[in-house]
Amino acid sequence: MSASIIGMAHSRVGRQEEQTLYSLLTEAGKEALKDAGLSGKDIDAVYVANYSGGGFNKQEHLAPYAIEIDEGLRFKPCIRVENACASGSTAIAQAIYAIESGRFKSVLVIGVEKMTSLKTAGVTEVLAMASYYPEEGGKGYSFPGLYAEYAKGYMAEYGYSEEELADTLAYITCKAHKNAMANPLAQMHMEFTHDFAKQISDKNPMIAPPLKLSDCSLVSDGAAAVVLTSTDNAIAMKDKVVEISGIVHASDYLSIVQGKRARYELTAVKYAAQKVLGDLGMTINDIDLAEVHDCFTITELLIYEALGLAPSGKGREALLNGDVYIGGRLPVNPSGGLKAKGHPVGATGVSMHVLIVKQLLGEAIGEQVKEAAAGLTLNIGGSGATNIVSVLKRIR
Amino acid sequence: MSASIIGMAHSRVGRQEEQTLYSLLTEAGKEALKDAGLSGKDIDAVYVANYSGGGFNKQEHLAPYAIEIDEGLRFKPCIRVENACASGSTAIAQAIYAIESGRFKSVLVIGVEKMTSLKTAGVTEVLAMASYYPEEGGKGYSFPGLYAEYAKGYMAEYGYSEEELADTLAYITCKAHKNAMANPLAQMHMEFTHDFAKQISDKNPMIAPPLKLSDCSLVSDGAAAVVLTSTDNAIAMKDKVVEISGIVHASDYLSIVQGKRARYELTAVKYAAQKVLGDLGMTINDIDLAEVHDCFTITELLIYEALGLAPSGKGREALLNGDVYIGGRLPVNPSGGLKAKGHPVGATGVSMHVLIVKQLLGEAIGEQVKEAAAGLTLNIGGSGATNIVSVLKRIR
Repeated sequence: MSASIIGMAHSRVGRQEEQTLYSLLTEAGKEALKDAGLSGKDIDAVYVANYSGGGFNKQEHLAPYAIEIDEGLRFKPCIRVENACASGSTAIAQAIYAIESGRFKSVLVIGVEKMTSLKTAGVTEVLAMASYYPEEGGKGYSFPGLYAEYAKGYMAEYGYSEEELADTLAYITCKAHKNAMANPLAQMHMEFTHDFAKQISDKNPMIAPPLKLSDCSLVSDGAAAVVLTSTDNAIAMKDKVVEISGIVHASDYLSIVQGKRARYELTAVKYAAQKVLGDLGMTINDIDLAEVHDCFTITELLIYEALGLAPSGKGREALLNGDVYIGGRLPVNPSGGLKAKGHPVGATGVSMHVLIVKQLLGEAIGEQVKEAAAGLTLNIGGSGATNIVSVLKRIR
Repeated sequence: MSASIIGMAHSRVGRQEEQTLYSLLTEAGKEALKDAGLSGKDIDAVYVANYSGGGFNKQEHLAPYAIEIDEGLRFKPCIRVENACASGSTAIAQAIYAIESGRFKSVLVIGVEKMTSLKTAGVTEVLAMASYYPEEGGKGYSFPGLYAEYAKGYMAEYGYSEEELADTLAYITCKAHKNAMANPLAQMHMEFTHDFAKQISDKNPMIAPPLKLSDCSLVSDGAAAVVLTSTDNAIAMKDKVVEISGIVHASDYLSIVQGKRARYELTAVKYAAQKVLGDLGMTINDIDLAEVHDCFTITELLIYEALGLAPSGKGREALLNGDVYIGGRLPVNPSGGLKAKGHPVGATGVSMHVLIVKQLLGEAIGEQVKEAAAGLTLNIGGSGATNIVSVLKRIR
C-alpha cells in the first residue's frame, strides 16, 4: 500500500510579524483542505509537526488546536509529532502508516514553526535542545558548532584544506540563493557572489569555524500542509496524482561529539537513501530532483555523497560538473532550500514534500524542473540523529 | 487487526534524585525488551512519549536517544509523540497503527518524564503550556485552576453545593491513597481520612477553589514501557497474551475557558468511550477494572459519568454504592492513580496500559482485582482536549 497527496498548502517563509503559531497552523490547514476539496468531516486524523512550541511560543500540546481549522475535526485524533528539524517528515510517515493501517482514509498533516518570537540568542538556545543537551547544547555547542564538527571531520578525513572547503561551500550558497530568486515564497531574494560567500567579511562573519554566516540556514516563521489518502482513493478523486512511493526513517545516535558515529559523512542518510531506493528497485539516477536538508552548506555537501551523487570525499564534483543545478542531472533544492527559502523547523519536512509534489505536477513554486517524474526529499533532525528520505512519483 | 503487549516495564514513581530523563528512558526500555525476550535488532521502531523534555530538562528531540538502550536499534525509526498528559496513550496508538500498516512487526513504546528537575513554580509554568496559552496559561491559569472551572461548572449545572462536592471528592482522594498502599511503585504510601481530605487545613490548603491540595495529582519522575506486536505474533510467542482490542482517540477544543465545550462533563471522553466499546460490541458492564486520568479528583468524578458508570450529575453514586472500589463492580484506579501512584506526565498513559495488562495477567502491581478479563484505560491531555480510551482483553 502507499499514500498520495491530494491537497497542499505552503505559507510564505520568513519573519511574519502579523502571524502567530496559531494563525500559521490554521491558515495552512484551511488552505490544504480547500485544495483537496474536502472539509473537516472528511478528515480522519490530524498530525501536527512542530519542533518547540514550548521553547518558542510557550505552547506545547498544539495538536488539538487544529480543531479551529474546521469544527468537523472535533473528536478526531490530533497528534503532535516532534523530531527536531525532521518533525515534518516524521509526521508524514506517521500519517502514511495510519492510512495503511486501514483505520483512516484521509489525514491532514501540518508542519508549523514560529521562531521569530524570540531574538537570535533565544532561538539558538531553543535549537540547542535538539542536540544531546548534557554534552552538546549544555556545553556551549550551538548547531553551527555541531555542523562545524562535520566540516572539520570532512577536512581531516579527505585531506581537504579550509580554503578548498570554503570554495566548495560557496558554490552551494550561491546555488541556493540563485534558485530562491524564482521562488515567490522564499525568505531571501538576494543573489550572492562566489567571492562574497567564500570570504570572511564584516557582512559574512565566521559563526563557528570553518562555517560562516553564508553557510547557515535561516530563522523563519512558516507552515506547510498536505492532505494524504491511499493512492487508490487519490486516483479515484484526482486527475493528477503524486504518490509518496517510499519513505524510510533511520535514526542514529543523538550526539555527534560523543564520537559514536562518523563526522565525515551522514551515515544514516546513506542507509535511508539506499533502503528507500532499493525497496523501490530504483537508483539515484531515477530521481529527477530533490529537496534536501541544507541546514548548513556542509550538510548539503555531505548529502551529495550520502545520496550517491558523488563518491565519498568528492561531493565538490557534483557542483563543478553542474549535476545539482537546475538543468543538471539532479537539481538539488530548486526552491532555494533551507539556506534561502528558509527553515521554519517543524514545517520544513512538510514543505519539502509540497515543493516536490508541485514540481511533479508541473506547477512548481519557483523555477520548474523540466520532465520531472520522480523526486526525493531528505529531512534531517539534530546533527544527523533523525533522517527521513521519501521518494515521490507522478503516477497519473 | 490488533496489537498485543509482549513486554513491559514500569519504574518506581516519585522524586528520583539519582535518575535523569535519560536513565529513566533507557532503564525502562531495557527492562521491557528483556521482559519480551527480544533485543534491539528485533524491534522495528521506537515511540517515545514525553510531554516537555524541553521545559523540564532542556531536551527536545529525545527519541533517537533510545538507541542507547541497545545498539541494535541504530537506523530504526525513533519518533517522539507529544499530546500533553496523554502523550503516552497517543504514542501507543501510533505504534498500533504502525504495526497494523504491516511495516513493522515489533515496536517499543516508552513514556517518560523527569519533572522534579524544576521547583514547583517551574513545574506549574511548564504544565501551563499544555493549556491554550494565550487565554489560559498566559493569563494566569494553572491546571488546578482549569480543572476548578470544571468543578464550578459541575456545581452550577447540577445544583451541587461546595460542601457536597468536597464530601464527594474526599471519597475519591481516600480511595486513591488506600489503593496505593499496596502498590510498591507508588509515589505516596499514606492513607488519608475522609475528614482530612474534605476540609481545608494548614496541611490541606486551597489550591484553586474549590480544589484543595488533596484534590491534586502529584509531581513525579517516572517511566513505563511496552513492546507491542501483532496479536497473531504475540500468540505465537507467549503463553499468556493481553491484547489492546480497541483504542479511540478523540480531540476536543484546546481551551476550556473559551466556552466552546461544556464545563460540567468530559464530552470527548464520553464520545471516545462509547465509540471504543461500541466498535467492540461491548458496554461498560463488560469491563472489569479501569485505570483512568484522575489528574484531579473532579476529573475522576466526571469520568464516572463519561464512562456511563453513573448518570450525569450522579457520579457520587458510584462511590457511595461501592462500584469503583476494589471488590466493586468496576474498580477504578486500583494502582492509586495519578493522585497517589503519581503522574510523570509523558509516562502516564503507558503506565496505565502496563498496570491493566499486569492485572489481566494475574500479576498485578499492587492489589489484584479478581477475575479480571477486560480492562480499560483513559488518558487525558490538557483540560480535556486530548482523550484516549483503550480496551484491553486477556485473550490467552
